[in-house]
Amino acid sequence: MSTHKTLNIALIGAGRIGSFHAESIARRIPNAKLIAVADPAPGAARRLADRLGCETAHTDPAALWRDPDVHAVLIATPARFHTPLAEAAAEAGKHVFCEKPMALTLAEADRVIAAARANGVQLQVGFNRRWDRAFADGRAAIDAGRIGTPQLLRSLTRDPGPWGGDPAKVPLWTIFYETLIHDFDTLLWLNPGARPVEVTAIADALVRPDAKAAGHIDTAVVTIRFDNGAIAVAEANFSALYGYDIRGEVFGSAGMVTMGDVRTSSLRVFDAQGVSASTFRMDTLHFPDAYTAQIQHFTDSVLQGRPHAGPGGADARAALAVALGCIASIQQNRAVRLSDVTQG
Amino acid sequence: MSTHKTLNIALIGAGRIGSFHAESIARRIPNAKLIAVADPAPGAARRLADRLGCETAHTDPAALWRDPDVHAVLIATPARFHTPLAEAAAEAGKHVFCEKPMALTLAEADRVIAAARANGVQLQVGFNRRWDRAFADGRAAIDAGRIGTPQLLRSLTRDPGPWGGDPAKVPLWTIFYETLIHDFDTLLWLNPGARPVEVTAIADALVRPDAKAAGHIDTAVVTIRFDNGAIAVAEANFSALYGYDIRGEVFGSAGMVTMGDVRTSSLRVFDAQGVSASTFRMDTLHFPDAYTAQIQHFTDSVLQGRPHAGPGGADARAALAVALGCIASIQQNRAVRLSDVTQG
Amino acid sequence: MSTHKTLNIALIGAGRIGSFHAESIARRIPNAKLIAVADPAPGAARRLADRLGCETAHTDPAALWRDPDVHAVLIATPARFHTPLAEAAAEAGKHVFCEKPMALTLAEADRVIAAARANGVQLQVGFNRRWDRAFADGRAAIDAGRIGTPQLLRSLTRDPGPWGGDPAKVPLWTIFYETLIHDFDTLLWLNPGARPVEVTAIADALVRPDAKAAGHIDTAVVTIRFDNGAIAVAEANFSALYGYDIRGEVFGSAGMVTMGDVRTSSLRVFDAQGVSASTFRMDTLHFPDAYTAQIQHFTDSVLQGRPHAGPGGADARAALAVALGCIASIQQNRAVRLSDVTQG
Amino acid sequence: MSTHKTLNIALIGAGRIGSFHAESIARRIPNAKLIAVADPAPGAARRLADRLGCETAHTDPAALWRDPDVHAVLIATPARFHTPLAEAAAEAGKHVFCEKPMALTLAEADRVIAAARANGVQLQVGFNRRWDRAFADGRAAIDAGRIGTPQLLRSLTRDPGPWGGDPAKVPLWTIFYETLIHDFDTLLWLNPGARPVEVTAIADALVRPDAKAAGHIDTAVVTIRFDNGAIAVAEANFSALYGYDIRGEVFGSAGMVTMGDVRTSSLRVFDAQGVSASTFRMDTLHFPDAYTAQIQHFTDSVLQGRPHAGPGGADARAALAVALGCIASIQQNRAVRLSDVTQG
Repeated sequence: MSTHKTLNIALIGAGRIGSFHAESIARRIPNAKLIAVADPAPGAARRLADRLGCETAHTDPAALWRDPDVHAVLIATPARFHTPLAEAAAEAGKHVFCEKPMALTLAEADRVIAAARANGVQLQVGFNRRWDRAFADGRAAIDAGRIGTPQLLRSLTRDPGPWGGDPAKVPLWTIFYETLIHDFDTLLWLNPGARPVEVTAIADALVRPDAKAAGHIDTAVVTIRFDNGAIAVAEANFSALYGYDIRGEVFGSAGMVTMGDVRTSSLRVFDAQGVSASTFRMDTLHFPDAYTAQIQHFTDSVLQGRPHAGPGGADARAALAVALGCIASIQQNRAVRLSDVTQG
Repeated sequence: MSTHKTLNIALIGAGRIGSFHAESIARRIPNAKLIAVADPAPGAARRLADRLGCETAHTDPAALWRDPDVHAVLIATPARFHTPLAEAAAEAGKHVFCEKPMALTLAEADRVIAAARANGVQLQVGFNRRWDRAFADGRAAIDAGRIGTPQLLRSLTRDPGPWGGDPAKVPLWTIFYETLIHDFDTLLWLNPGARPVEVTAIADALVRPDAKAAGHIDTAVVTIRFDNGAIAVAEANFSALYGYDIRGEVFGSAGMVTMGDVRTSSLRVFDAQGVSASTFRMDTLHFPDAYTAQIQHFTDSVLQGRPHAGPGGADARAALAVALGCIASIQQNRAVRLSDVTQG
Repeated sequence: MSTHKTLNIALIGAGRIGSFHAESIARRIPNAKLIAVADPAPGAARRLADRLGCETAHTDPAALWRDPDVHAVLIATPARFHTPLAEAAAEAGKHVFCEKPMALTLAEADRVIAAARANGVQLQVGFNRRWDRAFADGRAAIDAGRIGTPQLLRSLTRDPGPWGGDPAKVPLWTIFYETLIHDFDTLLWLNPGARPVEVTAIADALVRPDAKAAGHIDTAVVTIRFDNGAIAVAEANFSALYGYDIRGEVFGSAGMVTMGDVRTSSLRVFDAQGVSASTFRMDTLHFPDAYTAQIQHFTDSVLQGRPHAGPGGADARAALAVALGCIASIQQNRAVRLSDVTQG
Repeated sequence: MSTHKTLNIALIGAGRIGSFHAESIARRIPNAKLIAVADPAPGAARRLADRLGCETAHTDPAALWRDPDVHAVLIATPARFHTPLAEAAAEAGKHVFCEKPMALTLAEADRVIAAARANGVQLQVGFNRRWDRAFADGRAAIDAGRIGTPQLLRSLTRDPGPWGGDPAKVPLWTIFYETLIHDFDTLLWLNPGARPVEVTAIADALVRPDAKAAGHIDTAVVTIRFDNGAIAVAEANFSALYGYDIRGEVFGSAGMVTMGDVRTSSLRVFDAQGVSASTFRMDTLHFPDAYTAQIQHFTDSVLQGRPHAGPGGADARAALAVALGCIASIQQNRAVRLSDVTQG
């Protein structure tokens, strides 16, 4: 049990999703306080801190390690900085909420997990989909035995289009490390007790075929075999013109659950063209409650001194192993056993 | 038990819905045969008969009464001819399938019912909505007690627009006699065992306000109180730009059933404007199976010599009483007790 | 423009909905602060205040009038106290957010409106349905002309059952004053620019027929005619066993909008019995965002010194007039012109 | 242009689906006549013929080749007899409607195609899904450019469970030859102009794991790469406890279409457990119109002497190539290029 009634959280990374998390901490989570913002870009931390009534801003996140008022950090930097920051924060005794992916190699993942354990801090990862009501209730239905043993699973992520990114700025294998990592976690989580054993990945640059020669990938389909026999399909694409499409499906020996709806509300408009509904265009608008709920849970868990029940370091590592298997599958153009990946 | 294996049915009235029924008899009902067509319009019966490979055509339906090969008639003329034709057919010993409304006064309804009874012929009425799968299963759910006692009911009919009719050619009170009569039957049928006791009607010319002064009505809302306490709302409009909209809802002490969907299929199209589906534009396309099923049932019942289980003369009379109550309600601008209507 | 950056709001009435609002103020609205709670029940205000970290609690709301730190009050007492409290608060210079119904007579409504105007304070009413995304977008679609001129409207409220209330404790006509008042506001708001001219109400005790003789009413159907020809139906029942059912529908000359869905999420469970979804059981769970959004808007408007764009005193008065028309309609068993009600 | 007004069709194979087709010919297709039934099982042809009022029954289908009154045959035998029967029928100058799969090897498929061409007869294959309204309209939307270029496709078949078959009687690779062949045709047809280039299959016995050692397969997931970059997933399982689940999805550069709904009608039942709908349990109940429409089209095409617009020999061969690729993929545990299959 913490002696604090409010959790002081510092944000690292004042970009789009970091700013959204900062707002959640400052405004939507009663027992959390945004105590500092750190970002190396000149002025970025300051501007965000000012906007949210937070006094402290840093360009160097290391300043946070020495600040005894900082109880926890939320890491929302570009992916390649996640591991060193998470590790340093844990070593400084700060609880860590880390955006996905927590690490880009299994060795990195192991370092973060070890640091958290050694320093007795909580480590939670931003797999927000688990906190969406439909997904959470779907998992509960599976746990309750309503669909029997999972046999066929599906999880997909389609980012809202048209995609206006610069292929040259997309890090290699981002679709696996940063996009499909959500689907891998979802699929593992929705097949409780089972372990993935083999993956096969197909990937292409269909949104920007001109960038394919340079290694750009924006579309992928992955099949995963589990040790309970289940077969899962994960699918991603960077440019869904109709919106931000996140769906899950688990078919089992006794039934099926489906989750996810791209429609913004129950409004239907009927006119001479037929019936229509509008669609979600942004991730944070699609899952606002899930984004907040995960940080609320982290906050409550730390304050109450009990282990959080959300995705942790081991989950991040397991999803990463699937992503690494996908990359190996593409490089070797064959199915890859995850034991080969994890045993390096 | 009939001695026939095929029921010879003659159609009276070769208009749009009559032609559709003729096609059903000729092509979609294996044990029925279209044996003759009658229509006073020069050439109309002949053209339809030729198109469907039927030999006999008449301009005078009375020719059918004398034809021993005619086992049954389907009456699909303008409404004002239904009663005399149904009565004459019954007196000639022909089984009668009569389009709604079977009669325009209670005295007329009584005459048809009496004629059918006196001559031992079957009398079924074209309340096709009862044969739609959703509505039929809804009634079955009510019968099974799944929603408890009905308390609030709704039935609506919105014809596909834009309405291009000529208000001057619409008979007075058509919206009650010919359109809402469907909803009245549906509401009475979905509240089994209960009797309507009072109606209040509101009506207007909202599609063609210019024709209101001439007595034209194209929009109506009706409330009906039943002797089991239930309150029903029926609603009609001549011009739904999005299609042919037929829906029903029954709320009871233990739950609710809803029925009806204007969408043509499960196809959904997702694009930059959102999600859309196309809608039904014609009654016979919306309920093709229901239109056929009612005649199939009539055919089977007559051939097997057992009373049909569809809507009959008493149902037609009960729905008509509600329509007459609506007309009185509008003329007197007050709620009207149906006992005042039925006791004349 | 207010000189404050945070709006200090005092809650009056620490019951179920008052407690929920207090939580919203304390936790979900960043620029609002719960500064005091008042409730005459011994200890009630104190317990709620303690739970939410609020220092000040009163048994007499009049203590708030003298407190210069109180910028605004949120009135969530039993309905009969709304008017005197709102009037007194306004006269004390406090901005007022008043739960529905703001008043039980037109004279009372006028007093509150006059007090707010005379004292230059904002007056917003808790018609939360306007703030639900589906309803708000539906109104926007109407404003954009997507369905043409409204012709047929429907709004319904079915409270989640089984209803376990004590009929003896339900004030007379509560179904109109407190339940259907929401639907009346919704219908008036969804038919912009039009005015209701006549109402007819039917009401009964179908949930608790044993209490009918004592004047209890738990089920009602109301028809409203507007000066633009539109006809609306409002419907309420206290005991929907399947959940908290709020829906709206507006049919116009060019199309239709429908709003409201009792299902809790996009989760669907498919098993040997078919397909199923779970349903909402509580108002504050169904519309959490709408409940918060209305207070957020009130807070922002007051702080920014601009008139709020939500429902105000005139809207509360207009919905009340319909409710009063319903009561007169039942007492006189006829349609009632609203001009007769408003001109008393 | 045929000189006949009615097409005389003989059925070969009086099993479940054959009997359904016979009924369609006899009763649901006005310009077709069931002229004969052939089935080697003693009495089977006779019983079906009698039931449908058809005079002629054979135990040897060869009797049909010599009958000049037989214009066409519908082949609905076990799959291994399709090719020899189709070939013989074509050589006898009979038009051929052949259930899927038309052949089990590419050489067989070529023989049937060649026989039909050489003898100037029509050859249509029973890929009924193309005739379902949702799928047909989906293809039309793709043709109209509404979703741009297809990038990700999905087609699935889940047979209604519990599966009560005998694994020992299921021919090897049936899931590819007979079940997924539908999905392969659907995917090729929904990606018009593109050609499949590579397939990877995963298969297992999840419904009956006890039969896996004997080679039984009841679950499969297949990925297909097309020459336009599109990636498709086909999926099948023999035992969906919730019903007969057929769905399709095509995601393209400008949008998406989805097709298929396991729910039987628009009826929804709301009760204390939530909202529910019932589901389809049989293929012929799910797609009755599609089953009839394909034979109606075949009949009309033959009678009018114009090539049918449905799936023909080349389509059957293309879908078969994918099935053969799947089998090779499983045997070799790798992705298989279809050029390797087709160039054998």
